Amino acid sequence: MRKHLLLPALVILACAFPALPAASAADAAASAPSFVDGKLELPTDYRQWIYLTSGFDMSYSAARTADHHMFDNVFVDPSSWRAFQATGTWPDKTVLVLETRGAQGRGSINQGGQFQDGDVMGLEVHVKDTARFAGQWGFFAFNDKTPAKRLPTGSDCYSCHEAHGAVDTTFVQFYPTLLPLAIARGTLSAAYTVEEKKP
Amino acid sequence: MRKHLLLPALVILACAFPALPAASAADAAASAPSFVDGKLELPTDYRQWIYLTSGFDMSYSAARTADHHMFDNVFVDPSSWRAFQATGTWPDKTVLVLETRGAQGRGSINQGGQFQDGDVMGLEVHVKDTARFAGQWGFFAFNDKTPAKRLPTGSDCYSCHEAHGAVDTTFVQFYPTLLPLAIARGTLSAAYTVEEKKP
Repeated sequence: MRKHLLLPALVILACAFPALPAASAADAAASAPSFVDGKLELPTDYRQWIYLTSGFDMSYSAARTADHHMFDNVFVDPSSWRAFQATGTWPDKTVLVLETRGAQGRGSINQGGQFQDGDVMGLEVHVKDTARFAGQWGFFAFNDKTPAKRLPTGSDCYSCHEAHGAVDTTFVQFYPTLLPLAIARGTLSAAYTVEEKKP
Repeated sequence: MRKHLLLPALVILACAFPALPAASAADAAASAPSFVDGKLELPTDYRQWIYLTSGFDMSYSAARTADHHMFDNVFVDPSSWRAFQATGTWPDKTVLVLETRGAQGRGSINQGGQFQDGDVMGLEVHVKDTARFAGQWGFFAFNDKTPAKRLPTGSDCYSCHEAHGAVDTTFVQFYPTLLPLAIARGTLSAAYTVEEKKP
């Protein structure tokens, strides 16, 4: 993993998170968030979790400042994904991972567009732990596999997710397979519902 | 799913496939390809399989002809993914799914770049079945959930994958977590190795 994490663009991307819920006890335990001295351990097997979506060069400001293209891929632990299927919202112990990856244009037989390369440029994690966190959710950014401290609650991530997240402070509006479930279950946040009605 | 499949761009995308191998018997049986009257049944649970990568507007020709942006997401059955971890190549009964999805720019708080929307524009499947197929692999394109006939062996997919696929006629060169395994295991195809050495 490259060591130049927490570039502004990545902090912005961290805010592109959604959230999900839980199934069998064994399954939930296997993917439950693990803390050491109050720091979150990196869930190293997240690429075997449930994939939610990918974005390309997503940004919350109209002016693009990055000098390179990027993909972001979002995964959720399987237990919480199953709970979301049943309820349209996230259970306690939900873990979402946002992986930011470098993009390449020319390579092998590709002549146009972009594909993902081997460089993981950032890993950020959004955890629901109602007993541990005021506000229920915590954000974490990893530079490497070292356990990470929770980002301060004054970080933009928290206020942005609160104000704009479609479901339980998470960006389900960007997860095409989950948004219909949330609509069907009536779990969209009031703030998001009002925002979407604006012309 | 939209019903305008098999546009040229999608057929081209179908060729962006890689391939993988198998683990526990129960697991392998759960995700093994299923045929009805010689037609492949759509594996409807592929979004719960292992995610391999996404591309954005990928194309094999320099001239872009599509009038809209697209993402493609690739998944492989978990059993075959585990076999690939151990061997660097794909087992019999490997199933790879390429999902093509529409892209949106402006939406919710996104101001730049693109995110995936709810429209699945195409589903194409690459299956390894050594007893069933001359050449070991078959390609299938789905318009809906109706079982699909194998694409004719004269289709460009077959010759392109044979000529350019990094591992066992599959495009592992575009799967960032698998390519290092193939390199480590020495499973890269001779054709790909020669191609990559060209200046």
